[in-house]
Amino acid sequence: MRIALLQMQAALGDIDGNLKTIEQAAAASVAAGVSLLVSPELSVTGYGLGETIKIIAQPRDGEIVSRLQGLADRSGLAICAGFPERDGADIYNTAVVVQRSRSAEFYRKCHLYGPMEKAVFRPSDAAPHVFDLGGLKAGLLICYDVEFPEMARHLALAGADLLIVPTALPASPNNRRVSEMMVPSRAMENQVFVAYADLCGRDALFDYEGCSVIAAPDGDILARAGRGQTLLFADLDLQAYADCKAELPYLGERRPELYGALARVP
Amino acid sequence: MRIALLQMQAALGDIDGNLKTIEQAAAASVAAGVSLLVSPELSVTGYGLGETIKIIAQPRDGEIVSRLQGLADRSGLAICAGFPERDGADIYNTAVVVQRSRSAEFYRKCHLYGPMEKAVFRPSDAAPHVFDLGGLKAGLLICYDVEFPEMARHLALAGADLLIVPTALPASPNNRRVSEMMVPSRAMENQVFVAYADLCGRDALFDYEGCSVIAAPDGDILARAGRGQTLLFADLDLQAYADCKAELPYLGERRPELYGALARVP
Repeated sequence: MRIALLQMQAALGDIDGNLKTIEQAAAASVAAGVSLLVSPELSVTGYGLGETIKIIAQPRDGEIVSRLQGLADRSGLAICAGFPERDGADIYNTAVVVQRSRSAEFYRKCHLYGPMEKAVFRPSDAAPHVFDLGGLKAGLLICYDVEFPEMARHLALAGADLLIVPTALPASPNNRRVSEMMVPSRAMENQVFVAYADLCGRDALFDYEGCSVIAAPDGDILARAGRGQTLLFADLDLQAYADCKAELPYLGERRPELYGALARVP
Repeated sequence: MRIALLQMQAALGDIDGNLKTIEQAAAASVAAGVSLLVSPELSVTGYGLGETIKIIAQPRDGEIVSRLQGLADRSGLAICAGFPERDGADIYNTAVVVQRSRSAEFYRKCHLYGPMEKAVFRPSDAAPHVFDLGGLKAGLLICYDVEFPEMARHLALAGADLLIVPTALPASPNNRRVSEMMVPSRAMENQVFVAYADLCGRDALFDYEGCSVIAAPDGDILARAGRGQTLLFADLDLQAYADCKAELPYLGERRPELYGALARVP
């Protein structure tokens, strides 16, 4: 499966403009033979919005998802995008994957990062799930989620081949290491592909690291972005990593009877 | 706390010779103001011994631990070394930490790697524990153990500041990534120091990667070895990472109620 990753400068609050950016990347992706296009966290609205997020959030059956679904239906491309999701009085930080002739898959962020997110979003109480995506098993995490090894492991144990991780990573030395070291480690230790799609540029609140990366099940880097807006491509070939899975059979050699402390609620 | 890490070429079956190598490193460590010296997996006997391990294994109250304890008592240095431990009919892959005027701390490897280890060792059914070491809280893992994120997390949740990880990592591209990416990721995601001490050179069965590393709680590399025998030094200053822990409060922002799948025994 060929995938594309849009490292994107999102315009704050400009839903139409951001969807057009995604549409342009979709056209380039289709021309390149891509099956899945991944865009960053809150790619449709921008991230650094503060309280404005509460005003522009939309329900699952709103215009944002409807336009993305239409793009998937017309293009045949699977598309992942991020948006603030309204559900009654609650707002979630949500990622959606739309595919032609299929119901959309949604994931709401479980681990909220920092004061802005905690002020506007409700954290999800539902662990992520795995779904079919063009012959692969895929799962969604959002940004800070992937920094917790438990979350990637949860999806790998559920059978995921590919972790799709929209992110909004502000520039900092620590965050640089998240992209360069921790994200490829998640791929290797779980023997999954990871598509980690960051915002880039700056908005009213943040300057983004722009360190999107596509990592392979052996921890190798298939594609890495610089700091600007770009479209990365990679071919995901599960069979190519059979030797690594034989050399390092992590999932089969776990000792879950020793891991009880990880799931213990204080 | 200043620590030293001995990346060591162990002589197969030469217990006296290997203990002398450790004694020489201990003398250099004391002269450098070190409090803890870490040596590799099975450093006292060598690793690539096959079935011979069953013959030369010793109990906890045998000569190996007694000589190490004597060295600790004379020098004031805490010393970590690896040896094959006999307990009745069972042989374990064990690491010991000896300290002056204290009982030795033992850890038996939980995740055995590959056919040789599985042929000679019994895997431990006890999760690792945390113990006092010169004002820090320390825990032991051995080689393959640290590649399972659950094990480092277990020790971090038990309060560890420092993971001491004797290893015997054969040379391979995948193993190189374990040292360069996965080990520093364990340090960062758990905000602990990790001292990862590899064998080097070759023995009858393996050619070692020799990629020992001391990683900091923000994932930074404090010291990294080349391929030959060497002694690495690093100063472990917990206070220096307070900003990182505030920026990335991983241990406090876990959602253990969502991690049940990790501890589920199939």
